Amino acid sequence: MGLTKIEKIIPGARWLRGYSTEFFFADLIAGITVGLTVLPQSLAYATLAGLDPQFGLYSAFVGGAVYALVGGCREVTIGPTALLALMTSQHTNLGGISGPNFAVLLCFLSGIVEFFMALLKLGSLVDLISLPVTIGFTSATALIIGASQLKGLLGLKGGSGSSNFLPTVKFVITRIHELRVSDTLLGVGSIFILLALRKLKDFKTPPSATKKRKILGAILWLTSTARNALLVLISSAVAYYAYENGQVPFILTGKVKSGLPTFSLPPFETTIMTSNGTMTDLNFTDMVSELGTSILLVPIIAVLGNVAISKAFGTVGINATWELIALSLSNIIGSFFSSIPVTGSFSRSAVNHASGVKTPIGGIYTGILVILALSILTPYFQYIPRAALSAVIISAVIFMIEYEVIKPLWRCSRRELFTVALTLILSLLIGVEIGLLSGVILDIAFVMHRTARPILSFEQCQSLSGIEYTMLKPRHSLLCFPAAEYIRNAINVTIAQFEKSPSFIVIDFRNIQELDYTAAKGLGGLKKELAERDIILILLGCNDKVKLILKTSLKSQNCYQVEDENHLDIMLQDQKINSKGELKDVIAPLLIMPSNDEDISIAQKESLRRE
Amino acid sequence: MGLTKIEKIIPGARWLRGYSTEFFFADLIAGITVGLTVLPQSLAYATLAGLDPQFGLYSAFVGGAVYALVGGCREVTIGPTALLALMTSQHTNLGGISGPNFAVLLCFLSGIVEFFMALLKLGSLVDLISLPVTIGFTSATALIIGASQLKGLLGLKGGSGSSNFLPTVKFVITRIHELRVSDTLLGVGSIFILLALRKLKDFKTPPSATKKRKILGAILWLTSTARNALLVLISSAVAYYAYENGQVPFILTGKVKSGLPTFSLPPFETTIMTSNGTMTDLNFTDMVSELGTSILLVPIIAVLGNVAISKAFGTVGINATWELIALSLSNIIGSFFSSIPVTGSFSRSAVNHASGVKTPIGGIYTGILVILALSILTPYFQYIPRAALSAVIISAVIFMIEYEVIKPLWRCSRRELFTVALTLILSLLIGVEIGLLSGVILDIAFVMHRTARPILSFEQCQSLSGIEYTMLKPRHSLLCFPAAEYIRNAINVTIAQFEKSPSFIVIDFRNIQELDYTAAKGLGGLKKELAERDIILILLGCNDKVKLILKTSLKSQNCYQVEDENHLDIMLQDQKINSKGELKDVIAPLLIMPSNDEDISIAQKESLRRE
Repeated sequence: MGLTKIEKIIPGARWLRGYSTEFFFADLIAGITVGLTVLPQSLAYATLAGLDPQFGLYSAFVGGAVYALVGGCREVTIGPTALLALMTSQHTNLGGISGPNFAVLLCFLSGIVEFFMALLKLGSLVDLISLPVTIGFTSATALIIGASQLKGLLGLKGGSGSSNFLPTVKFVITRIHELRVSDTLLGVGSIFILLALRKLKDFKTPPSATKKRKILGAILWLTSTARNALLVLISSAVAYYAYENGQVPFILTGKVKSGLPTFSLPPFETTIMTSNGTMTDLNFTDMVSELGTSILLVPIIAVLGNVAISKAFGTVGINATWELIALSLSNIIGSFFSSIPVTGSFSRSAVNHASGVKTPIGGIYTGILVILALSILTPYFQYIPRAALSAVIISAVIFMIEYEVIKPLWRCSRRELFTVALTLILSLLIGVEIGLLSGVILDIAFVMHRTARPILSFEQCQSLSGIEYTMLKPRHSLLCFPAAEYIRNAINVTIAQFEKSPSFIVIDFRNIQELDYTAAKGLGGLKKELAERDIILILLGCNDKVKLILKTSLKSQNCYQVEDENHLDIMLQDQKINSKGELKDVIAPLLIMPSNDEDISIAQKESLRRE
Repeated sequence: MGLTKIEKIIPGARWLRGYSTEFFFADLIAGITVGLTVLPQSLAYATLAGLDPQFGLYSAFVGGAVYALVGGCREVTIGPTALLALMTSQHTNLGGISGPNFAVLLCFLSGIVEFFMALLKLGSLVDLISLPVTIGFTSATALIIGASQLKGLLGLKGGSGSSNFLPTVKFVITRIHELRVSDTLLGVGSIFILLALRKLKDFKTPPSATKKRKILGAILWLTSTARNALLVLISSAVAYYAYENGQVPFILTGKVKSGLPTFSLPPFETTIMTSNGTMTDLNFTDMVSELGTSILLVPIIAVLGNVAISKAFGTVGINATWELIALSLSNIIGSFFSSIPVTGSFSRSAVNHASGVKTPIGGIYTGILVILALSILTPYFQYIPRAALSAVIISAVIFMIEYEVIKPLWRCSRRELFTVALTLILSLLIGVEIGLLSGVILDIAFVMHRTARPILSFEQCQSLSGIEYTMLKPRHSLLCFPAAEYIRNAINVTIAQFEKSPSFIVIDFRNIQELDYTAAKGLGGLKKELAERDIILILLGCNDKVKLILKTSLKSQNCYQVEDENHLDIMLQDQKINSKGELKDVIAPLLIMPSNDEDISIAQKESLRRE
């Protein structure tokens, strides 16, 4: 379908085309349902990021509106996520007013980096992150987030607020005797309730059910979907009444700042507390150097998150560049409203999908709900028990640990299982950035290894007229620099094993798509080397690209190239006559099986010709 | 041939097997000829490294003996080279006694690193350095070395002794008016003489020539080969007589320390001059941190040099690990005799080859000559004009600039020409390490790009019984993580272009050797996605490895796999009946041409089956 002029400038305008009452109500219901999920989640994620709860809400209303204007996948909901909150938390513990400043600046800079990624079409960089690396990385993140919430769950006080796994676990273990029973009961109980309510969704209502049964089904589904909101609501109500009666059974969230965030430039300077307790001013350069690799890593993880969502919902025809721009604008504009870094949330997108959203306009309704909450509900947010928020986070991230991948990978690809393990362990022990990077490098090393050490198979063959030759089949389509020396060695080693040196070595180029200068020169050297031992090197079925590079890089000392089996036969016969000086009778074409029984005869393959 | 017990412990012992008088004289002549080359070269390279000339000689006698004991290629001669001297020179300008200390420690540490490379079989890391990167790197090095010698050639005084290209060229240009005419005449004249003498070798004596003509040929060849020694000898003689007559027309080398180096541990501490002129002690850690990446880069370049030589002389059956150990021991033992880093010298190995060397024992004779020179000739070395040594270096490195590669690469592979240019330019502007590393990263990026963006071709085909399907042929043998998303998109985009959605998509797996977990999961997702649009995904001709990974990673939702064209046909017919509910007559096999005229029909390819 063609786009109108206005739709080309504002892609989101197309959603209004045929926007019926039916669409409006569907989007409204989905928007409110997502809102019931995002309210407790954003409070919790802000705490996870080491900030006051209101910053989560500040981050939850811009993305939806921006995405409705620019985005292309109706399910995507943009806002704070556990992963980005964890990454942000590394920069929010420097004291003073610096926490929110670093978080908001990181949001702004992530948006800028995403914009340049869109401009330079670098979004495909996330292709370098394989599934095993993603699994190792997200599982490690889930463990780190889970560990970081144990403190809140058990009502422990103090600790560094560090986002490192080992120190956090150590802190909880050494202080386990200080746990508060009421918080622990609430926290652990909440997790069980949340997991049970999550299961409710699995009760499917058959299409043939009675109306009553259908209404029951809808109520069950809504209870399951809004479970976080329900839990927070009920536990807060209990805490509120206890508080009114002069009791504080749980550690509470504390005062949440009311009202909308002020619209202002992201902070380009801040003040931190140094180790000796004095305050120091940091300018923009200092802040950037403190944020360090996060400026690149947060956008990459954000893009990865968005790609995973569009992959999961299988929406076709999404423009990757516009998606990146949507993400970029959500972060840039968000940072003017004190947002922390945002991206597509997998869990909320799933809720959105299940709620029957029709267009991304649903995100606008969610945003309005968040703004209403900021204006009206904030006085009540202070009564939310911390243990309940910790339970919300833990029961969300618990499903990010993908242990079920271990068995199939053990059976079919232990190399990739090792990649999972390396990424996971380094993420836990050193940091998520190092873990992710190591996984990617390991994957690249594998591809390079395959390119450098292609599987080679040698066969003893006879041509159509019965002349013997040795055929090398490289099992890789790209013959390039790291393999050049290896192939030369392999041929020499193979020849050395023969009792009598073969007269012809044929390299099967029919599956080889590309050759580089190094490999071409290597073949030239090999030809010379073999010629000294009266062995003729023949290349079978080179494509035009390969021919060109052989011709130009080897100049006068061109390799013998033959097109197909017939041509090869003629060539071998000519060479027999010329080099040995003996004239052989031309034998009729024969069907002769090569040494490897699994392969069918060369003659049968005769008709195969690649372009 | 089997090795005796002693030959297994000392591989070099095998050279003595059948070591005849003939071999002795051949090796002796070759050894002396190489000695006449190495004497002036090592004096010059020591100066290039920023050290006193005797350190070149110290580096030129251990390698030959070690290589004779351990090495496997008779042509290789190990000693100082221009490239390693240049890399060493980066660490010899810190003043005090630190120059030789850093050089010798670098030699020792390079040997240690090479030993671990041998142990861990990491020698193949040099496979990652492609020919274009090598060309860019060595050409840049030649330019840097050439520029660094301009000062000596023109008799200019002062300057920083920096090994950076631009500052050196700038220094020469701004001080060009200070050039000394006598030095310049000697230097430039020497270059012309050396280049002319080099050409002498090209006069081939026909085998049928008279005895006189043959003797003349031998003299011409010897003059050409020993040209550096002759030039140094004659120019020194001139300078000596001028000096005796109270004149100093040229800048001279200055006093060369006489006698053999003392056998001692490499220096693990040193003293440098700080910027304000005072002396500071450095311990081992400080020295290592000053040497930095050179500790890894010097060994890698050294190994690359050795590989290039054995490649050039096409010696078969060389054990790469033993070669590395030979290199390692040459450096480690050398460092006890105050050697600077050494490796195989390409130019001297060529001389060795041309002199008819029979075994690496020739290197021992060269070593004896160098030791004799150190004992007897050093008093005369001080009269060698610096301009003559500069001419020796310049006329050696001038042939390392491989401009002749530009034309063929421009014609057949501009990507690789870009690699040459990038490596060259970054090496000149920033440093040889950065240049080399950038070239390698660019090459790896290319391999990753090819893997991530395999060439895909879609064909509209008909099965043996005439059922239509769309066939995707990936032109890459490794289907893995970076390509998973790309292939999914390509199929969706292709389907979108059809007027009527096809019923079947067949992916041709017959050329695909390997699939990873990410790609397998991607296929599972694609299958689901297509199924929603009533399109059936079929994989044709998967090998066992691919089948295993598909089966284990996709579990219940297995993809349809067919073995060959017959199997495909049966499958398509079944699906026709099942999915559309219509029973079609089985049409007799037809020869139907696919849309692409260049391809032959599917039916003709029928018999092809890969293991």
